[in-house]
Amino acid sequence: MRKIDPERQQAKRRQIIEAATICFSRSGFHSTSTAEICAEVGMSPGNLFHYFASKSEIIEAIVEEERRDTAAYFIELDTAENQFDALLEFLDIVMALAADQTYSRLALEISAEAMRNPTIGALVAVSDGEMRTAIARLLHNAVKRHQVDSDIDPDRAATWIAALIDGVFSRLAVDPKFKPKREKAMLRLIVNRFLRPDR
Amino acid sequence: MRKIDPERQQAKRRQIIEAATICFSRSGFHSTSTAEICAEVGMSPGNLFHYFASKSEIIEAIVEEERRDTAAYFIELDTAENQFDALLEFLDIVMALAADQTYSRLALEISAEAMRNPTIGALVAVSDGEMRTAIARLLHNAVKRHQVDSDIDPDRAATWIAALIDGVFSRLAVDPKFKPKREKAMLRLIVNRFLRPDR
Repeated sequence: MRKIDPERQQAKRRQIIEAATICFSRSGFHSTSTAEICAEVGMSPGNLFHYFASKSEIIEAIVEEERRDTAAYFIELDTAENQFDALLEFLDIVMALAADQTYSRLALEISAEAMRNPTIGALVAVSDGEMRTAIARLLHNAVKRHQVDSDIDPDRAATWIAALIDGVFSRLAVDPKFKPKREKAMLRLIVNRFLRPDR
Repeated sequence: MRKIDPERQQAKRRQIIEAATICFSRSGFHSTSTAEICAEVGMSPGNLFHYFASKSEIIEAIVEEERRDTAAYFIELDTAENQFDALLEFLDIVMALAADQTYSRLALEISAEAMRNPTIGALVAVSDGEMRTAIARLLHNAVKRHQVDSDIDPDRAATWIAALIDGVFSRLAVDPKFKPKREKAMLRLIVNRFLRPDR
């Protein structure tokens, strides 16, 4: 039996995920064939199936990677002196990602797919739940440090921050005039007025 | 040639739309067959095709009906003394609709379908644009009457109100603990803090 080199395996999976991201974002998840992904990555179908058994497994890996990246990002924010400012910086990054067409189209594809594919739906729900928990922890710390209005329940506020983030991506789907780069300041203003103790 | 009775025609279309709403909301747009809609409405496929040529045409009619209802609602709000309160009342209705499973599931199906079907995508965009224009007009009136902070641009604020509404429906898709009836007050608080002159 051939020995598996885990590092090489990881690198190949990365390559496939990157190629698939481009394809899904360009053509949509449903309209992308495995052949298209193979062409993008320069790999035979047989070889690709060695790493991912289906298109759905690739999307699952994308969601899982995003979940890990977000978790790692929030762990870093934990040490920030001003936890409310850390939240605003996170929202700036969300707006930068929303401005990136490859990212935002893929995000919308994943949302649509989550409604039709229960496995992806469950992964998205887990990832979303973790993000909300991380935001709630940030807000909880911010309340303790008087950086956020103590009248606001951190868990429920985190839910509405998540709703605002969802709203940004939905705007992109429906309103071609919505420009995340321009709207970044307005999101900061809304969150400031919503949460600051000295509004 | 048989004479068409426009009133009877309208009533039949209504019946089909209502049956399809139940089916789409229950099984999803893609998994609903025309046969299922026919069974729900008690009509033969041949008869149904006399009113709608395809499943897609039924969804188009649903979006169009929603657009007309919303437009009529906002025309009524035009006479309200307090235009900001009128906006809050509109948002209460949105939250009541979000709490209605048949409505909210259908709304999510339409959003997903709008991404895959350009005709539905275009109709949803028109309907959304009209709603934003109506909210912007309301806010514009509210600024003139000092009911809303004059620092806020009504058009851009309307975009963010629409983003919040999108966010509510996305929450329903991803977070089973999100209860619109409970969250109604939080939406009012966010919009109050965002827009009131005396926050």
